[in-house]
Amino acid sequence: MKRLWNFSAGPAVLPEAVLSQAAAEMLDWHGSGMSVMEMSHRGPQFMEILQSALEDFRELLNIPESHKVLFMQGGAIGQNAIVPLNLLKGFNSAAFVKSGSWSAKTIKEFARYGRADVVAEAREIKDDSGVRAANTYVPSIAPGSISPGSAYLHYCGNETIDGVEFKHIPDMHSLGAAHVPLVCDASSNILSRPMDVASHGLIYGGAQKNIGPAGLTFVIVREDQLDRALDVCPSAFNYRTVYDNHSMYNTPPTYAIYIAGLVFKWLKDMGGLPVVAELNRKKAQMLYEAIDGSALYVNRVRHADRSLMNVPFQLREEALNAEFLSLAQERGLTQLKGHKSVGGMRASIYNAMPIEGVEALVDFMLTFEKERA
Amino acid sequence: MKRLWNFSAGPAVLPEAVLSQAAAEMLDWHGSGMSVMEMSHRGPQFMEILQSALEDFRELLNIPESHKVLFMQGGAIGQNAIVPLNLLKGFNSAAFVKSGSWSAKTIKEFARYGRADVVAEAREIKDDSGVRAANTYVPSIAPGSISPGSAYLHYCGNETIDGVEFKHIPDMHSLGAAHVPLVCDASSNILSRPMDVASHGLIYGGAQKNIGPAGLTFVIVREDQLDRALDVCPSAFNYRTVYDNHSMYNTPPTYAIYIAGLVFKWLKDMGGLPVVAELNRKKAQMLYEAIDGSALYVNRVRHADRSLMNVPFQLREEALNAEFLSLAQERGLTQLKGHKSVGGMRASIYNAMPIEGVEALVDFMLTFEKERA
Repeated sequence: MKRLWNFSAGPAVLPEAVLSQAAAEMLDWHGSGMSVMEMSHRGPQFMEILQSALEDFRELLNIPESHKVLFMQGGAIGQNAIVPLNLLKGFNSAAFVKSGSWSAKTIKEFARYGRADVVAEAREIKDDSGVRAANTYVPSIAPGSISPGSAYLHYCGNETIDGVEFKHIPDMHSLGAAHVPLVCDASSNILSRPMDVASHGLIYGGAQKNIGPAGLTFVIVREDQLDRALDVCPSAFNYRTVYDNHSMYNTPPTYAIYIAGLVFKWLKDMGGLPVVAELNRKKAQMLYEAIDGSALYVNRVRHADRSLMNVPFQLREEALNAEFLSLAQERGLTQLKGHKSVGGMRASIYNAMPIEGVEALVDFMLTFEKERA
Repeated sequence: MKRLWNFSAGPAVLPEAVLSQAAAEMLDWHGSGMSVMEMSHRGPQFMEILQSALEDFRELLNIPESHKVLFMQGGAIGQNAIVPLNLLKGFNSAAFVKSGSWSAKTIKEFARYGRADVVAEAREIKDDSGVRAANTYVPSIAPGSISPGSAYLHYCGNETIDGVEFKHIPDMHSLGAAHVPLVCDASSNILSRPMDVASHGLIYGGAQKNIGPAGLTFVIVREDQLDRALDVCPSAFNYRTVYDNHSMYNTPPTYAIYIAGLVFKWLKDMGGLPVVAELNRKKAQMLYEAIDGSALYVNRVRHADRSLMNVPFQLREEALNAEFLSLAQERGLTQLKGHKSVGGMRASIYNAMPIEGVEALVDFMLTFEKERA
């Protein structure tokens, strides 16, 4: 058995310790005589697994009592509809920051349910660096631009495809919209560093990047947002219904929750999010420095807005792309191909990517450049 | 390690061979250097897993070309809303058979979207056996009772809680509604025997009973039913969108699909559904004969409609319930407690329950009765 350094954007690398434990417990969880996959979701064993996962998630993110955690299905793309279905009662519109591919998708889906006001958009602009391409920076929201009648303000905390990350959350007070709930798609940077949960009305995301297997969706919702659903909202996706039924109105994705719970324990054992954040900063710095110091590789995202999780980079000679990917694979570096809309490469370096993996990538990049210079 | 005989109604027992293979492949699938959980859903390895699962599922059920298979999320409870959201365009109502707890739940959810016409209901009746309790038989649909303007006729093929199973599907021709699509919730008896897929417009269900882990939903939809969605239907749950994107409009529950694929291979290796059906018939017969031959145990479902998958039974002396469950657990027979709405016991004997498990249960039941008689 040989494990590769896996830079997939999601589903993505998981801690080897978690996978080893899952393998060891596959046929008999803690002497129960069953796999976790075979347990009734209402039985004492799974209830313990669920409760423990919820508590650890809350502890890691320091989630205040005012905010409830739901485990759902359908991913962030599902939530693009589920959020308005849950929050639009009595409203016609919501406000959006368009910072890249994922927020654009969120805005498009919202149009089924109401008027999307795009209050900031990362268009192509000219700044002191010359022409800055679209979706390579976090656009600013002008104070006063959020309509007081907005159901919420939505932003995507980390644009997985474009490699653009919010380092500061929108300050609703200074934007003159303190009463408008702030909603965040945190799919690809949740648990990568401490987060100001209390300032949000809603945080959601798919688990398959920084938490666990695909098929699990986390929702952190402030209690006062639980009763704003439209009548057409399906019960299985109604936050109030899911909350009142302890995330078991429909059968939850039990095995995915179990794996997520193991990941939470692994993060706690590392020392929690401050330690994790420092490691993530180091990993990203190492990679961006290699790119910036090179004549072959380029990342066009504004430095202050560069993602610490997803690092897209292009080769200045595009003809080398295929060779780069093929040699990388030979060196045990896999799933580096960039998203088709951006091209080039993308290295996703989530929590579970060890620093040794980033070192191996940087080492390969330097060698590749030297041999082809 | 000791595996118990697991009679859970779902999530439920899986074949030990499948779990063993999953454990062995957990850290490195087929030399890929990755767990299946860590693979991009768009990478060649997972595409192979998905394609193979789809093909095997089609082959097992002999699904005709006219019918498409989708892998989704949200379970059958999610589909209670997703079905009307997808099929109600241009319609105000649908027709329903109310045969137990699950179909009742389906009908209740439908009311968000249209008028539910209950065309047959398993009420308490008097027949040649005396008083027959509600939800202990499959009610008959009177010819002509289905409104020609119905979007579809819905039935639940097997009522998991009540232990009532349709042995014959509604014949839409003889009911005078040949043009009305037939819709089946097949969550708990899919793959338990061959099925007449071609006569259905739609078949759906959660995977966690006879297919694999919770969090995966299968949908078998006739091509002409793909374009009847309401505008408020979320894209992630729109059959046309999911189909056009090969079940990858949102990230699919990759690991659950992988396990399902292993289960499909296991069923094929057994000889396919005719062999599986014969084994299921034997298992159920053994258990019902033990119940019927006993003075302690009783199952009140009409014989012709008894489920081959879920066998609820009561102890005539209810005071013995706790002792029964406790001694059963000591004998390695677990998750036998009945659903709270029915009481008593329930033995779910899905495909993955070996005949030896049913023999062990019957043996224990006879001993328990003898010792307490």
